[in-house]
Amino acid sequence: LTEESILERVRRQVVIPRGSGVIVGMGDDCAVFRTPGAKQDLLFTTDLLVEGIHFERTMHSPAAVGHKALARGLSDIAAMGGEPRFCLVSLALPEWAGAPWVDRFYAGLLKIAAATRTVVAGGDLSRAPALTCDIVVAGAAPIGSAIRRDNARVGDSIYVSGRLGGSALGLKTRRGRAWKKHVWPEPRLALGAYLRKKLHATAAMDLSDGLSLDLRRLAIASKVAAEIDAPPVFPGATLDEALHGGEDYELLFTVAAGTRVPPHFEDLPLTRIGIVRRGKTGMVLLSGQPLMPLGYDHFRRP
Amino acid sequence: LTEESILERVRRQVVIPRGSGVIVGMGDDCAVFRTPGAKQDLLFTTDLLVEGIHFERTMHSPAAVGHKALARGLSDIAAMGGEPRFCLVSLALPEWAGAPWVDRFYAGLLKIAAATRTVVAGGDLSRAPALTCDIVVAGAAPIGSAIRRDNARVGDSIYVSGRLGGSALGLKTRRGRAWKKHVWPEPRLALGAYLRKKLHATAAMDLSDGLSLDLRRLAIASKVAAEIDAPPVFPGATLDEALHGGEDYELLFTVAAGTRVPPHFEDLPLTRIGIVRRGKTGMVLLSGQPLMPLGYDHFRRP
Repeated sequence: LTEESILERVRRQVVIPRGSGVIVGMGDDCAVFRTPGAKQDLLFTTDLLVEGIHFERTMHSPAAVGHKALARGLSDIAAMGGEPRFCLVSLALPEWAGAPWVDRFYAGLLKIAAATRTVVAGGDLSRAPALTCDIVVAGAAPIGSAIRRDNARVGDSIYVSGRLGGSALGLKTRRGRAWKKHVWPEPRLALGAYLRKKLHATAAMDLSDGLSLDLRRLAIASKVAAEIDAPPVFPGATLDEALHGGEDYELLFTVAAGTRVPPHFEDLPLTRIGIVRRGKTGMVLLSGQPLMPLGYDHFRRP
Repeated sequence: LTEESILERVRRQVVIPRGSGVIVGMGDDCAVFRTPGAKQDLLFTTDLLVEGIHFERTMHSPAAVGHKALARGLSDIAAMGGEPRFCLVSLALPEWAGAPWVDRFYAGLLKIAAATRTVVAGGDLSRAPALTCDIVVAGAAPIGSAIRRDNARVGDSIYVSGRLGGSALGLKTRRGRAWKKHVWPEPRLALGAYLRKKLHATAAMDLSDGLSLDLRRLAIASKVAAEIDAPPVFPGATLDEALHGGEDYELLFTVAAGTRVPPHFEDLPLTRIGIVRRGKTGMVLLSGQPLMPLGYDHFRRP
């Protein structure tokens, strides 16, 4: 049982009728929905955050949990080049999470919501044995312009933003800039809009489960292979952390060969790490050797 | 700590800027979002279903859990007179829920999805200590036509569909039609569309937590009081179960005085149970006596 195998079983059974308005269904960072007459497509993503799985109450402050719950969804919107519009927050609370915890959780969530102009438009509340938050974020992009992950073409250049492995390092050391990167991830919304509008990226996704696994997902969706060199490593992190560590929330993207990509976007380095190749679908080569998809899968490492 | 008090604390902090597209935010059955140029408003609702809270794995089959997870959201869409469009399914699985459980869960969910033309457009998967499902359902209604719960006016007649208390009775007896009503609730989508298009209902909501609590919520949202007689009782149920029992998923609605409401819609009885009054906001009188809001609140009865 892996996350992919479960989703693949469901995907095979789902029918998307013509005229349903669903332009992109399961398998991308966001679903894309088109309303008759609308000038923009709407993007939707949903992300679970579960105590003991995604965070520990002893380690992560309530405000940080609220921040990350929304940041994860915003990162998916960024990956498609969307602008956030609103979110819905479902929160299942165990006995230990009283009014003060909930207030601080929402303080963290509302702060990043305000900073990104995301309206908290509704949600649901329940009891639960472990604290569970599920957030839906809705975004918008001009009709047909959302950057998908299934459109990388042979010969495209592969890029990442930032330096990888910081979140994994932070989770281990719990201090410094790496810890900050782990606890307060910044969704790359401005970069995503730039990839859509200026660089006309052919494909993009956010790095939530580690480059090795996420690049494989992008390659599978696009029915291509990929060849890369070592990605830029976060100061102090190992190459393993950069390749397989989760929760960096940087963007992985491809552009047509010959596209001029500046070395930085604002303060963020943009680094060419490789090229899209013909080959076994989903195969990723690192310095010529097969790279195992050892990134984070809830179901392989429970 | 009650569900209302938590949501009220959040609601007070949420700002909905002009031009955000969010027409209805927290506090109704669905959030309502308007895209520039679109001919329809979009409705969004999110509902948690938690093992040990909303269902027991020993009592509810996986297909029934899948059915109910989606039916609850569809019922919110029905309450606003919307047509379903798509849903996103977040599923957090404990170790005991393997591939067979997940397959049967999706069989139940995909069956009601197909019957109601709801496209499963995405979702998320995680591990969790207790099985938790959060579903977002999106629906649509012509611009400005969604039936809200904050628009009941003094003098309006109050109606309910069906007979109440069946789900509470079924949960107790676990047999017969009441059990079926509890396990396989039918969202009143056709009725909701009829209330919007033909009866021009002034307000509506679905009965998920019991008439006493839900009518109070409608009255508070509309800043009115209500006076009712005993509602129609599901065969075999008690008046208490009809007044306070949750999960009937019938519709509660108000219409302007003088509106002709037929005694049935298809096979479903429509019963006038009272009238909207001036008075203490949220106060509900049953046969002249205050009716306590004893319906289901996760946080009052954990």
